[in-house]
Amino acid sequence: MILRDLLETELSIIQAPMAGVQGSALAVAVSNAGGLGSLPCAMLSMEQLRDELIAIKTQTNRPYNVNFFCHDVPEISHKAEMIWRNALMPFYKAHGVDPNTISAVTRVPFNSDAVDILEEFKPPVVSFHFGLPSDELLARVKAFGAKVISSATTLEEALWLEECGADVIIAQGLEAGGHRGMFLSRDLNSQLGTFALLPQIVREVNIPVVAAGGIADAKGVEAAMALGASGVQVGTAYLLCCEALTSQVHRAALTSSRAKHTALTNIFTGRPARAIINFAMKELGPIHYGIPEFPLAASAISPLRTLLEARGSGDFSPLWSGQNTTGCKTIPAAELTHELAAGL
Amino acid sequence: MILRDLLETELSIIQAPMAGVQGSALAVAVSNAGGLGSLPCAMLSMEQLRDELIAIKTQTNRPYNVNFFCHDVPEISHKAEMIWRNALMPFYKAHGVDPNTISAVTRVPFNSDAVDILEEFKPPVVSFHFGLPSDELLARVKAFGAKVISSATTLEEALWLEECGADVIIAQGLEAGGHRGMFLSRDLNSQLGTFALLPQIVREVNIPVVAAGGIADAKGVEAAMALGASGVQVGTAYLLCCEALTSQVHRAALTSSRAKHTALTNIFTGRPARAIINFAMKELGPIHYGIPEFPLAASAISPLRTLLEARGSGDFSPLWSGQNTTGCKTIPAAELTHELAAGL
Repeated sequence: MILRDLLETELSIIQAPMAGVQGSALAVAVSNAGGLGSLPCAMLSMEQLRDELIAIKTQTNRPYNVNFFCHDVPEISHKAEMIWRNALMPFYKAHGVDPNTISAVTRVPFNSDAVDILEEFKPPVVSFHFGLPSDELLARVKAFGAKVISSATTLEEALWLEECGADVIIAQGLEAGGHRGMFLSRDLNSQLGTFALLPQIVREVNIPVVAAGGIADAKGVEAAMALGASGVQVGTAYLLCCEALTSQVHRAALTSSRAKHTALTNIFTGRPARAIINFAMKELGPIHYGIPEFPLAASAISPLRTLLEARGSGDFSPLWSGQNTTGCKTIPAAELTHELAAGL
Repeated sequence: MILRDLLETELSIIQAPMAGVQGSALAVAVSNAGGLGSLPCAMLSMEQLRDELIAIKTQTNRPYNVNFFCHDVPEISHKAEMIWRNALMPFYKAHGVDPNTISAVTRVPFNSDAVDILEEFKPPVVSFHFGLPSDELLARVKAFGAKVISSATTLEEALWLEECGADVIIAQGLEAGGHRGMFLSRDLNSQLGTFALLPQIVREVNIPVVAAGGIADAKGVEAAMALGASGVQVGTAYLLCCEALTSQVHRAALTSSRAKHTALTNIFTGRPARAIINFAMKELGPIHYGIPEFPLAASAISPLRTLLEARGSGDFSPLWSGQNTTGCKTIPAAELTHELAAGL
């Protein structure tokens, strides 16, 4: 099965959903350019989700993708919360943050409320991070005709996704920016580079495999296709595009030499994700043990982020990025999509 | 400069030097097949070095490579030795090892004795791991006409190697098996996947860049070339070849499903190296802090390795492997070299 026949796109290029740094505008631009634009929904309220879906439907008639996280909601651990706030206390003090004013940052996993809305809009593609939702929710998604995509970071995860009903697998090499999609293991040693992960998944599954991680330009696309990919998913390279909502501190980091130094960190959300190394990652991480489970760790660090970003500093911001920022360009997303397509 | 013109080989394929699992036989086979065969010299005495060089010279008139480690010799730390022996004590007791019988396992860095011998044989290519030797030693190597290769695991290391006189750089992605060539940083977070590392080095240096890490077959070679490599270095795929000296426990691990799970570990030598996860890595690592510096950590663990290998167990053996063992085949190295060459 050829990926673009399955997804009904012109190009086998998926714009990676990137919560917090993009909305419908980037998705629309990529879909209209022939790729598969993606709307990250992990941090949207139901009202925002509806608004964004309306925005997409009114601006493109091409296929698009909506992406959700499907993590288990953790129980609140007062001990973990204490560990984390104690670690952050010196910075609260330095910047005048009152810990009593911390409010919960929520990332609600995919649920029936979301499906209710999706059933109205029938998005052609729905992708998930951290595995797949419950059989019941997945059946409802499939019932309205959506193709289902999810990310695998190991061969075991790829085989699990194929068996559980995914139509397409993203092989997420550890070069990739943002959250690791890992869901069968928490061991970072299990994570493979794209060069090793992609061909191993391709030879073991019977559904299309899309390469992600380190792909920044047409040559990267060509290399991924040589390794057996049916298409590519590109995130980092889109971060500077006009249609992205990437903050100024984030854009500044991406265009600086600091972008050469990334690490997997859990301090921004509780789950490992790749970001450009900043002050907070150096002082508190990159991996801080004992902090609240995803997504609860985000709450206590967020006031520092907000406060410092207002002062023009990204010291406490999650500067999501893959290991290869050489493809980041301040150009329209359509142009970038066409440039990448030269490697198909 | 085209790599095979520089190295005077027919093919832009370097067989990775793998100390402990191969000698002149594998190097000769690859060189005679048109690639660049490599002799790992890190664990050879001067007498063995001479014997191996004679063996190569009498069996091929094609170019070949001799590889050396050029680490700084650490001072012995009694504290580190104590930490390490204490950690190993339960296993000494379980297997009846008397710690008083531990003898030093030595890996002597490249030195003037080695150059004295090399000057007799004038190997056409000399490669180094962990940077480059002193200016004086390097000048002597260049004086007899050898081309010099070394590995970079970051862009900083590549720029350093170019400036310090390397003729060719190996971009060692973190998929690669065996010792990380890292020498400007000890931070494992600095290590990049081949997909991200290779194009970044290619665009910043003016000498040929050879890709290493995760390349297992012709498709992998093709992908590396698409990313701008001037050639490839392949190690893991050669481990099952008839000419390799890979032990039975090592071969068994490489052909089992365990080979899908590797990690960077320091427990076998003191420096991070990628190996298939075994009992010792699970119990003691993969990273054990405070143990003796490279190569001194090898001494205390070696008796356990020797004892258990004699019983057919690889529980304490360094089962070096990259993250992609799909190319491992029990065939002559010449055949594997020809198969890889199809991707050039």
